Amino acid sequence: MSFDISVQCKGSIMVSSLLLDLSSSSYSTTSRLLLPFHGNKTLTLNRRLFSKAVPCGRRSPAFSPVTMAMAADTSAKIIDGKLIAKQIREEVAGEVARMKNEIGIVPGLAVILVGSRKDSQTYVRNKKKACEAAGIISYEVDLPEDSTEEEVLMHISDFNTDPSVHGILVQLPLPRHMNEENILNSISIEKDVDGFHPLNIGRLAMQGRDPLFIPCTPKGCMELLHRYGVEIKGKRAVVIGRSNIVGMPAALLLQRENATISMIHSYTRNPEEITRQADIVISAVGVANLVRGSWLKPGAVVIDVGINPVDDAEDPRGYRLVGDVCYEEACKVASAVTPVPGGVGPMTIAMLLSNTLSSAKRIHRVEW
Amino acid sequence: MSFDISVQCKGSIMVSSLLLDLSSSSYSTTSRLLLPFHGNKTLTLNRRLFSKAVPCGRRSPAFSPVTMAMAADTSAKIIDGKLIAKQIREEVAGEVARMKNEIGIVPGLAVILVGSRKDSQTYVRNKKKACEAAGIISYEVDLPEDSTEEEVLMHISDFNTDPSVHGILVQLPLPRHMNEENILNSISIEKDVDGFHPLNIGRLAMQGRDPLFIPCTPKGCMELLHRYGVEIKGKRAVVIGRSNIVGMPAALLLQRENATISMIHSYTRNPEEITRQADIVISAVGVANLVRGSWLKPGAVVIDVGINPVDDAEDPRGYRLVGDVCYEEACKVASAVTPVPGGVGPMTIAMLLSNTLSSAKRIHRVEW
Repeated sequence: MSFDISVQCKGSIMVSSLLLDLSSSSYSTTSRLLLPFHGNKTLTLNRRLFSKAVPCGRRSPAFSPVTMAMAADTSAKIIDGKLIAKQIREEVAGEVARMKNEIGIVPGLAVILVGSRKDSQTYVRNKKKACEAAGIISYEVDLPEDSTEEEVLMHISDFNTDPSVHGILVQLPLPRHMNEENILNSISIEKDVDGFHPLNIGRLAMQGRDPLFIPCTPKGCMELLHRYGVEIKGKRAVVIGRSNIVGMPAALLLQRENATISMIHSYTRNPEEITRQADIVISAVGVANLVRGSWLKPGAVVIDVGINPVDDAEDPRGYRLVGDVCYEEACKVASAVTPVPGGVGPMTIAMLLSNTLSSAKRIHRVEW
Repeated sequence: MSFDISVQCKGSIMVSSLLLDLSSSSYSTTSRLLLPFHGNKTLTLNRRLFSKAVPCGRRSPAFSPVTMAMAADTSAKIIDGKLIAKQIREEVAGEVARMKNEIGIVPGLAVILVGSRKDSQTYVRNKKKACEAAGIISYEVDLPEDSTEEEVLMHISDFNTDPSVHGILVQLPLPRHMNEENILNSISIEKDVDGFHPLNIGRLAMQGRDPLFIPCTPKGCMELLHRYGVEIKGKRAVVIGRSNIVGMPAALLLQRENATISMIHSYTRNPEEITRQADIVISAVGVANLVRGSWLKPGAVVIDVGINPVDDAEDPRGYRLVGDVCYEEACKVASAVTPVPGGVGPMTIAMLLSNTLSSAKRIHRVEW
C-alpha cells in the first residue's frame, strides 16, 4: 500500500519538488489520506479541529543552521529527521552491500503504478531513486488507467512468487473502478513492506506476537524517539489522530514499549487537557497548528507528523508548510520537537528501505 | 482459543461448581491467563498493583434480591450480567430454531480437548450444556495428553472443512510439547469464534475493516454497556489491563465506538489519577479490589472483568470471589457497576454462542 504526499493548495497546485525528500510509500499530508477509512467523518474532523486551530507564529523551518540558531534561542531540542534519515539510508546501503558481497543477494522492491497521475509518477520516481542510492533494485510496472483489477492482481501474484522481489508496493490512489482492499490484501504478507495488512496490524496489537513489518511513518516516529534517547517505558503518550497508517499503529508501538497511551480523535471532547498530560505527543491529524503551546506539558517530546500548507504571500509559492503543532510555541514549552519539514517526513522513505532490507534478510535467513 | 476460569486458592483448590455459569471459552480469572503473553512481567504486574490493593468491604454479591436491596441503598445501578446473558442465550436459541426451520441448518461448535485436566473437562462439559440449551450442536474431540501436535492439527483441519461445524475451539492450556500459536493459527479464520486470530484483531484495530468475530469477553462488556444504554461516543474510557483476550480488544472496541481511550498497565505510573478521568472503566487485570472508590469519577460506569478469590473464613469454602474493583466503594461513587460474580462472567459464554450462531448465518448467507 502506498499513500503519498499530495498537498492541495489554493487552485489545486500539486506540490512535489519541495517534498521529494519527505515523501515515501505510506505517507500523506492530507487528512483525507491520513484518514483514508474515515469517509464522511473526515470533514467533520477537520471542521471540529480547525475551529480550534488558529494560525500561529511564522514558518517552521527545516533543519538548517538557521534552525540551529532558533533552537539555541528556545528550550527545545530540534529532532533532526533529515539527518537521522540520512544515517539510516547509509546504514541500509551498507547492509545491502554486505548482503550482496556475502551471499550474492540484492534486495528488490516492486512498485506498481496504475494510471498517469503526475504526483504518483513523481513519488514512484522518488522511491526508485532512493532504492538506487541504497543499492536496492527497484522493479516498476506501469499500467494504463483503464487496466482491469485482474491485471493488477496478476502482477502482484507474479511479484509474490518472484524470488528477486522482497517488497511490493501498490501506488495509491488506484483508479476508482478497482477494489483497493482486494488488491492490497493480495500482496504476500511476507512482502508487504508497508505493513498495512490486517494480519500485520493484529500482530502489532498483540502481546507475544511480532509483526513482519511495521508501517513506515510510525516506525519512523519511534526511530526518532529511540535515536534521540527518549525514554518511553512508563511515560504518558498521547497520539492525536487514529488513522490506520499513522495514528493507530503509532499508539500500538508506544504501548509495545510500555508507554501509557491515550488516543485523541475527532470525537474527543477535551483534547487540550488530555494532551497536556503527555510526556510524548505524536500528532498525525493533518490540521495546521492545531496543537498550541498551551496543549503541551513543559518538557514534553513532540513528534509532528502533519505537513499542512498554509497561505503565505511572502513565499514565492504563495504558501508554506507547517505541522499539526505550532512549532514556535512548542519550542518554548517542549524539551524536543520535530520541525516541519525536516522531521518525520524524511524518515518514512528511510523506513521503507529499511523494511525492504529486513524482508530480504528474513527471506534469505541472514542472521546479522 | 479457549481460556477458562481456573481460580487457584490456598492449597490449590480448583473452583468449578460455583463458576460454571461464569466460565466460557475465552476467559480466565488468573492474571497469568488474563495476561497470557506477559511472561515474566506478570509477576511484576501483580506485585506492583497488589501493593496498592487493600482488601475492601465485604463480599460483592451476585445479582439477587439482596443485591437489589443493596443497590437501593447506594447510588449505583447494578448491571445485571446474569440477566442479560440469559436474554442473549434465549435470543440465540430463538434464532437457532428459526434457522433450522427455515433452511434446515443447525449451527455447530467443535471443541478439542487434549489431556485430562479436571478443570478443562468441566469447562468443556459446560460449553456443551450451553450449546445444547441453545440448540447448537457441539462436537467434541478428546485426545490423550501424549497426542502429537499433528493429530490436533489434523482434527482442526477436518473441522475447518466440515460444513456442519461453524465454530472451532481448542481448550487451553495445551500440553507443553505442543506449539499453541501454531495450533490456534491453523483454525480457519471463518470458524475462529474466539476471535483471537491476529487477522481478526488487525481488522478490529483498523478503521474501515470489520473483524469476523469479536473476542467473547470484551464483546460481553460492550453488550452490557449497550443494553444498559450507556453512551460511549465522545466519552473518556479507561481500560485497566492490556491482555490479548480482554483489555486490548476492549480498548479497540471502545475506540471503534468513538470513545477516547487510555490504557493502564503494569508500567503505568499514576493509574488512579488516569482512571479518575474516565466516564467508563473496564478493569481486566486480575487483582482483587485494585480499583478503589477514590479511583472513580462520580457517575462513572464500571465494568469489572476480574474474578479473584480472597480468603474468607466465614465462607464454607474458605474464600470468596471479588472483582478488580472494590464493589462497595464503587457503588457509592459510580452510576452503574457490574457485580462479581454475576456481571461480566455470564456474558462470555453467551457471546460464544452468539459468535457461533453468527458464523453459521454468515456461512449460509442468512440475511436476518
